[in-house]
Amino acid sequence: MGRMHAKSILQHPRTATLTGCDTDPSRAQELSKEIGAEWLPLDEALESGAYDAFFVASPPSAHLDQVTRAARGGAYVFCEKPLGEDLASIDAAMPNLRQHGDRIQVGFNRRFDPHMAELKKRLLAGKIGQIEQLRIVSRDHTAPCVDALQNSSGLIAETAIHDFDLTRWLLDDEVAEVMCMGSALINPAYASVGHIDTATTLLRGSRGQQVVIQNSWRTSYGYDQRVEAFGAGGRLSVANPAGPLVAQEDASGLHRDLIAPDWLARYPEAYFIQATAFLDAASRRDAVSPDLKDGYAASYIAQKAADSLKSGLPEACEYGGLSVDLTTARAHIRK
Amino acid sequence: MGRMHAKSILQHPRTATLTGCDTDPSRAQELSKEIGAEWLPLDEALESGAYDAFFVASPPSAHLDQVTRAARGGAYVFCEKPLGEDLASIDAAMPNLRQHGDRIQVGFNRRFDPHMAELKKRLLAGKIGQIEQLRIVSRDHTAPCVDALQNSSGLIAETAIHDFDLTRWLLDDEVAEVMCMGSALINPAYASVGHIDTATTLLRGSRGQQVVIQNSWRTSYGYDQRVEAFGAGGRLSVANPAGPLVAQEDASGLHRDLIAPDWLARYPEAYFIQATAFLDAASRRDAVSPDLKDGYAASYIAQKAADSLKSGLPEACEYGGLSVDLTTARAHIRK
Amino acid sequence: MGRMHAKSILQHPRTATLTGCDTDPSRAQELSKEIGAEWLPLDEALESGAYDAFFVASPPSAHLDQVTRAARGGAYVFCEKPLGEDLASIDAAMPNLRQHGDRIQVGFNRRFDPHMAELKKRLLAGKIGQIEQLRIVSRDHTAPCVDALQNSSGLIAETAIHDFDLTRWLLDDEVAEVMCMGSALINPAYASVGHIDTATTLLRGSRGQQVVIQNSWRTSYGYDQRVEAFGAGGRLSVANPAGPLVAQEDASGLHRDLIAPDWLARYPEAYFIQATAFLDAASRRDAVSPDLKDGYAASYIAQKAADSLKSGLPEACEYGGLSVDLTTARAHIRK
Amino acid sequence: MGRMHAKSILQHPRTATLTGCDTDPSRAQELSKEIGAEWLPLDEALESGAYDAFFVASPPSAHLDQVTRAARGGAYVFCEKPLGEDLASIDAAMPNLRQHGDRIQVGFNRRFDPHMAELKKRLLAGKIGQIEQLRIVSRDHTAPCVDALQNSSGLIAETAIHDFDLTRWLLDDEVAEVMCMGSALINPAYASVGHIDTATTLLRGSRGQQVVIQNSWRTSYGYDQRVEAFGAGGRLSVANPAGPLVAQEDASGLHRDLIAPDWLARYPEAYFIQATAFLDAASRRDAVSPDLKDGYAASYIAQKAADSLKSGLPEACEYGGLSVDLTTARAHIRK
Repeated sequence: MGRMHAKSILQHPRTATLTGCDTDPSRAQELSKEIGAEWLPLDEALESGAYDAFFVASPPSAHLDQVTRAARGGAYVFCEKPLGEDLASIDAAMPNLRQHGDRIQVGFNRRFDPHMAELKKRLLAGKIGQIEQLRIVSRDHTAPCVDALQNSSGLIAETAIHDFDLTRWLLDDEVAEVMCMGSALINPAYASVGHIDTATTLLRGSRGQQVVIQNSWRTSYGYDQRVEAFGAGGRLSVANPAGPLVAQEDASGLHRDLIAPDWLARYPEAYFIQATAFLDAASRRDAVSPDLKDGYAASYIAQKAADSLKSGLPEACEYGGLSVDLTTARAHIRK
Repeated sequence: MGRMHAKSILQHPRTATLTGCDTDPSRAQELSKEIGAEWLPLDEALESGAYDAFFVASPPSAHLDQVTRAARGGAYVFCEKPLGEDLASIDAAMPNLRQHGDRIQVGFNRRFDPHMAELKKRLLAGKIGQIEQLRIVSRDHTAPCVDALQNSSGLIAETAIHDFDLTRWLLDDEVAEVMCMGSALINPAYASVGHIDTATTLLRGSRGQQVVIQNSWRTSYGYDQRVEAFGAGGRLSVANPAGPLVAQEDASGLHRDLIAPDWLARYPEAYFIQATAFLDAASRRDAVSPDLKDGYAASYIAQKAADSLKSGLPEACEYGGLSVDLTTARAHIRK
Repeated sequence: MGRMHAKSILQHPRTATLTGCDTDPSRAQELSKEIGAEWLPLDEALESGAYDAFFVASPPSAHLDQVTRAARGGAYVFCEKPLGEDLASIDAAMPNLRQHGDRIQVGFNRRFDPHMAELKKRLLAGKIGQIEQLRIVSRDHTAPCVDALQNSSGLIAETAIHDFDLTRWLLDDEVAEVMCMGSALINPAYASVGHIDTATTLLRGSRGQQVVIQNSWRTSYGYDQRVEAFGAGGRLSVANPAGPLVAQEDASGLHRDLIAPDWLARYPEAYFIQATAFLDAASRRDAVSPDLKDGYAASYIAQKAADSLKSGLPEACEYGGLSVDLTTARAHIRK
Repeated sequence: MGRMHAKSILQHPRTATLTGCDTDPSRAQELSKEIGAEWLPLDEALESGAYDAFFVASPPSAHLDQVTRAARGGAYVFCEKPLGEDLASIDAAMPNLRQHGDRIQVGFNRRFDPHMAELKKRLLAGKIGQIEQLRIVSRDHTAPCVDALQNSSGLIAETAIHDFDLTRWLLDDEVAEVMCMGSALINPAYASVGHIDTATTLLRGSRGQQVVIQNSWRTSYGYDQRVEAFGAGGRLSVANPAGPLVAQEDASGLHRDLIAPDWLARYPEAYFIQATAFLDAASRRDAVSPDLKDGYAASYIAQKAADSLKSGLPEACEYGGLSVDLTTARAHIRK
């Protein structure tokens, strides 16, 4: 992650210095050398007050502390999703983060994918009117090893959180209710370590919009990332990008190649555009987007989805950690 | 409906006589003349014991009585969906219907659509393994007039019921739970007469399969009927049939024509194949399919979806009207 | 062929009597019985003067004689393509046919295919302006046995003749020049009996339009029949109709089923609409279309293409058998 | 062109120094500064013997002289297509170029497009067997101003030359005959300055393969670059890459966005991969591809196509400037 961001940062015209940090100094040195950056011990960098912008790509459990310290010094902070390990820790950190809300960008990279951005543009242009129904498919290609799940916050908190953000962004509205159905259908071993691998989530927007998200940790056919929005004017959809544009037609029918295998192959442009947008905002001292509020809201919905998974019931979304109404919350964050 | 079935019946090689009936004799005479059939007063036909097979295409409120009388005489009975106006009346009729279950076919025509049938065939052949996630889109082109809704049992009981049957058929399994989210998003006037126009239904199969159905009374672009099934082996989907295969590429991009506008244009083959399958079964004294049990189960799920819509909660499906377990129920019906 | 037309004829509302004929009376009797028609010895039928319309579906060598005799009696005549075995015999017959030109329809069924008709409609509506470039693909699925070629007039005269007619119809213009390149690429045995199996023909319309036709006797993937027209306004294309609309996406990519295997599966609607159009014209005593002139012109181009194949040079098309100018010819035919 | 190549060169790991040259020193200085390169007067650079590789992106009339001088010094030379202004000047230069044939790469960038490369890979893997028929569409979006045509060698020599190279590369064979049909259909003003704007070229490979190329200077819908190959095993095709993957379905049908507008948007990867392949070959002292022979052959076919356009007749391709047989020629070039 750090490596990927470094490339984008070095290409930005306003980048003067890039410094690599890590809790492990030797790793910081190594990476910095590799990407052609200086290096500094992490604490020193965070406390120096010398940086205009930070990219936080550490493990989720370290996000809130690092973001808070970086923001306190007046810097712009880009934080990979999720904002924190769980909603409780985010709620606890909010008093110290709230006043920096406009300078804290959260890594919902899909908003910057040119295809998703084109969809958003058309929705804003009223091409189909208000969204009435929305469907998001977000299915990974290769399921994680059971052993690798110790540090994973799971399908909902790590994967679906992107889709919760997409939902809010595309609806241009808050989620009012969430009902999540999930279980281990790919591999029962996941269930034995407390994880689900397949989930379908039903959400209601504040104006009654009906949203469905289909998540899975495994497809046989590639990284499946599609969106379909329905309104009075019709249907807008984003398809998976094709692989090579060679089609073969033979005695068994028509064949096309696999789609992209993973997020690295699917979203390189999105990551670059995301970093550029953040650095542009930092350069111009503009408000970032998606911001702290967006990071909070997605984690909030993820928590409610997890609650629903346990309770087997729909859960109301009232964004209580900020305030009953996220619009009010927005005012708080924005000062 | 009667007219459409008549054409199929007259083309069946085992059809000797076709007789038209109606509660209104003059209408029966008129229709019979038009389609080249004899005619008989309805009661006379039902009681005559002279017919091998009946097609019941009357209003839903008349279904159960006519089906029961026709079946009692030993005839095969094709009944348009739904089997009855509501689950209570079906439950009440079951003691008299149960023993004829194998001779009562319910009009879930989509099972006979060649594209849906091909999907089913591939699922049975194990092309993608067990279904883990399923998505059905079923959206009508033209929403009904508010005035026309007096005799309508609504979006769930009239439209979604097809999708509940598709779900059971494609999963090859029973539904264990249903959660329905719906409201009037197209026209608030629908809400004022107690109807919803847009619904998203989340169902769970008995093995944890996750199913989503998206229904709406209105699209701007035609009759939208698509299915997508996900399993370990991949993804199987049924697209909407294209209209004319002419594509135009010009200064504003690539354009294709509208899809079929309605069920008449989308499913003519399905209706013909459905009637033929029923008459074939009647000729050979075979069990029909979908049968009474299937008709019951779809109405049962529709009732639970309606309950969920009211309660705002997921509803368990235990098929109580038949017995706790539909497999047992199946034994009852089949004797 | 006769069987197929019989079905369409029997469904036409103005059909009073259908009579089957054959040079072999016992075959005529058999077929007539099968299709529910009367029968008559061929000569008797042709000379009776009792029929409003004839369908000539005999071998090409018999066409001209039968068409002439049928037309002489005042009947409308539908003649399967080609009008005659070769251009010389057609030229010889023209003095006797010319005055009946408006009552002689030639079996270019593709004009009646709804997809091709939609393309024509859009061209007439000026959707892309004048055609500048045109490309027709017409490739059969299963190549004929070498033994079956004794009675075959070959790839150009039997298959490409359809495409020559399509060219004239879509351009709404005459062909001015033709250059044909062909050889036996599928099977050298074809060359040994004087046939080619693969041809590419380049034609120029009278206004300089550039047309390319790709023919082959064999594909591995079905009956390939596509058209693409380019003009100032853009591109119009007709694709092959899909088979079942089920797509499968798996570890080897995306797969769709085969297209239609042959003309029987591809053009059933076209044959029905063609017969209906002819019988409608006969009922109303209207001019038919495509008519004698169109049948002549396609055979003329086929002859020139065959000449080009031999000479290796482009051949000018001057439609000499009728007159230098086909427009004048048209006047002759139409009287 | 120079600018585009500079970017690729600077990213190559073996690039030590990049120097900009131009016949106009002030332009050379300006460009060099812009791209971060040193600069040198052109003659000095060509004669210095200090460079491992040259990129020649000057006007076609300067190609042969610069390529010859650069190659004489032992450097690898990349030359934009065409190799020379016309076949006569190339023929005249060949005695001095022949011995450097393996170090002279000609800029047929489409060979490096990942989609075309995938097609080639599948052809080599025998996916459809030998090509029997081939169709190439290559149509530009925006036609040139009539005034800009003074320095243009025209549709055949500038655009179709790419397709002649594609033909040889995909067939893995030489062209034996070419017949070109062309005229000014877009704008008669082109004809008045001796140009055509629309061409269809029919070629025959040495084994009888049938090739069709459709060229035009104008589409309304973008840069149309498609290939379709037919063999015993089926059909392989390369489609145009889509623009944004957003589809809209509304009351007028299904709509997709425009394809890429021009070669800059269509082939950026191809240019980068092309430059990298050349520099890799130069670094390793390998033979380049496409090489001098390929550059010669494409210009040769272009000349024959131009001859055919004038004569109205097919022209035989015997590659006489090199020798009767290009395989022999190959030996000459390769030493």
